[in-house]
Amino acid sequence: MLEHEKDTTGESSSSGKAHANPLLVELTRGDMVESVHRARYAVVDNEGRVVLQAGDIEAPIYARSAIKSLQAIPLIETGAAEAFGLGDAEISMACASHDGEPRHVETVLAWLERIGCGVEDLECGAHLPYDPASMESLLRSGNAPTAAHNNCSGKHSGFLTTARHKGEATKGYIRRDHPVQQRILGVLEAMTGLDLSRVPMGIDGCGIPVIGMPLGNIALAMARLGSPDDQPDRRQEACARIRGAIANEPIMMGGTRRFDSRVIAAVGGRAIVKTGAEGVYCGTVPDLGLGFAVKVDDGAGRASEIVAGALLRRLGVIDDQQAEALSELLRPAILNRAGRDVGVIRTASAARF
Amino acid sequence: MLEHEKDTTGESSSSGKAHANPLLVELTRGDMVESVHRARYAVVDNEGRVVLQAGDIEAPIYARSAIKSLQAIPLIETGAAEAFGLGDAEISMACASHDGEPRHVETVLAWLERIGCGVEDLECGAHLPYDPASMESLLRSGNAPTAAHNNCSGKHSGFLTTARHKGEATKGYIRRDHPVQQRILGVLEAMTGLDLSRVPMGIDGCGIPVIGMPLGNIALAMARLGSPDDQPDRRQEACARIRGAIANEPIMMGGTRRFDSRVIAAVGGRAIVKTGAEGVYCGTVPDLGLGFAVKVDDGAGRASEIVAGALLRRLGVIDDQQAEALSELLRPAILNRAGRDVGVIRTASAARF
Repeated sequence: MLEHEKDTTGESSSSGKAHANPLLVELTRGDMVESVHRARYAVVDNEGRVVLQAGDIEAPIYARSAIKSLQAIPLIETGAAEAFGLGDAEISMACASHDGEPRHVETVLAWLERIGCGVEDLECGAHLPYDPASMESLLRSGNAPTAAHNNCSGKHSGFLTTARHKGEATKGYIRRDHPVQQRILGVLEAMTGLDLSRVPMGIDGCGIPVIGMPLGNIALAMARLGSPDDQPDRRQEACARIRGAIANEPIMMGGTRRFDSRVIAAVGGRAIVKTGAEGVYCGTVPDLGLGFAVKVDDGAGRASEIVAGALLRRLGVIDDQQAEALSELLRPAILNRAGRDVGVIRTASAARF
Repeated sequence: MLEHEKDTTGESSSSGKAHANPLLVELTRGDMVESVHRARYAVVDNEGRVVLQAGDIEAPIYARSAIKSLQAIPLIETGAAEAFGLGDAEISMACASHDGEPRHVETVLAWLERIGCGVEDLECGAHLPYDPASMESLLRSGNAPTAAHNNCSGKHSGFLTTARHKGEATKGYIRRDHPVQQRILGVLEAMTGLDLSRVPMGIDGCGIPVIGMPLGNIALAMARLGSPDDQPDRRQEACARIRGAIANEPIMMGGTRRFDSRVIAAVGGRAIVKTGAEGVYCGTVPDLGLGFAVKVDDGAGRASEIVAGALLRRLGVIDDQQAEALSELLRPAILNRAGRDVGVIRTASAARF
């Protein structure tokens, strides 16, 4: 239940089916706009007031990896992180979609050993590192990727840590009915203010459940992650621990080249932001008491980052000087194979932020 | 100048800015549609009559790699292909976006040698093979990709062949004012029926010019590639040679795993189809005298293939039995990292084809 306040932009607000979401991002090549992306976003305060919005913010979306920081709350609240002596690097990785750089893989392997598990206990599946240099180096060394290279291996290590601490079975920790997933469901209900007993569900790329929730309520949950004033003390402490860990170890939450890590580092942790698959992007700005959520209709991550950057600019989290320094992320050039600059990805000319 | 005939579907037809193009493709995950793609398409006969359309078919697009078969016409018409004894494999590769499998790279290298050039003459830039197995094997062998691995290396070898045959400078063959590119411009004018002297232009990923042309006129050019009845004899022969080469060597035009190659092979060359970057897809069905062009608004290739497949179904080129055999291409499952089937990409429920 969100309260609509002011500054409502975009073409539609409620039903979602009738109207198209607004055109927010465009890609140019030479003299023309070549491709465009429609998206919707909500900026909500920690009491549920909608501060900014575009498009349909009530239709459900899967938040995918953009809410890993919420999914990490039980790791702290259960005392599991403390019991196993996890540091900022591990906690940041529990919230990560990482690029599989050596630092990520080594941290996960050492962490698994500390909780008496191994890479074979990870149920996320394996894939090549997203970081091109790490991918090339892995293949050149004659090795194959393991589940530790999976961008979700930190989140899964967090799940295993909680299961270990609570004395629960580690096998099947990705299943909907496992206590690990049930605790996350409870956290999401409290943070979004939703009854999640009858909602659309699916399976994420890494095997855990995904839950359909209205975009606006996801933004509210992100606002509460940043400013959990109305939550129990234990949750307030957990949220602060998670925010602090990511702010101190932003590279562990993504990677050296990643938009998320670089933006968090550039703003000194003033905002905690995270991408998710299929064009989702979420963030929280604790000192403003605000959270935001973005969903690009067509699922393009290249567009969700542009929208997130524009919102951080609009909210004053990224100032003019920082915007200059981050220009290759906020308004990336399109290079051809020979490295020539042939276009740009930017907010659409007609878009209002 | 196209004639609009019948069966007009979609929300808009002319201005393009006012209305959104129709929602044609959706991606599901579990209980929900997770992402959607808007697109426009035109099916046009070789006299310029619009047989089917959705969305704005008059706004210009860059056809990108989807019209490589048109760009290969001068290679045949100038007599260059015959002079250097090119076979179906090379001519198919001149029209290819290939996956960098060993067969593609070896064919290009031998071809370059035959025309007295080397990989250093290719101006397309280098990138890793798109085919994962070929990419892994290249890196495991300790080698780096060259311009021969570039998916456009066959097209560029064709350009070099024509320049060699005509005694033109090979250096700078990608430049707009080079005779190689000027000849292509002339072909595109004749095939689309457009005056291309004042059009939006840009630079493609491989360095050659891209030209903004209305979607419907691109479809007309594709119809003429298939059924060039109104073109000079020399052009008719060139078009037939190109169609035959691709039909005989569909894998050389893409790759073992590629949608294009597999569809062409499955229909026995009855349709010649080709993907292009940023959500473009073109094809020709010679025995129906039809050509088609698709542009996905957001540039997603995963969606353009679905639309192309649906059009080939609608036109009866892919029959029920073939559709069954091609179901993993026409309605691909989404698998998570552990290989579990978690969703599907398909034509949108509300889309009419």
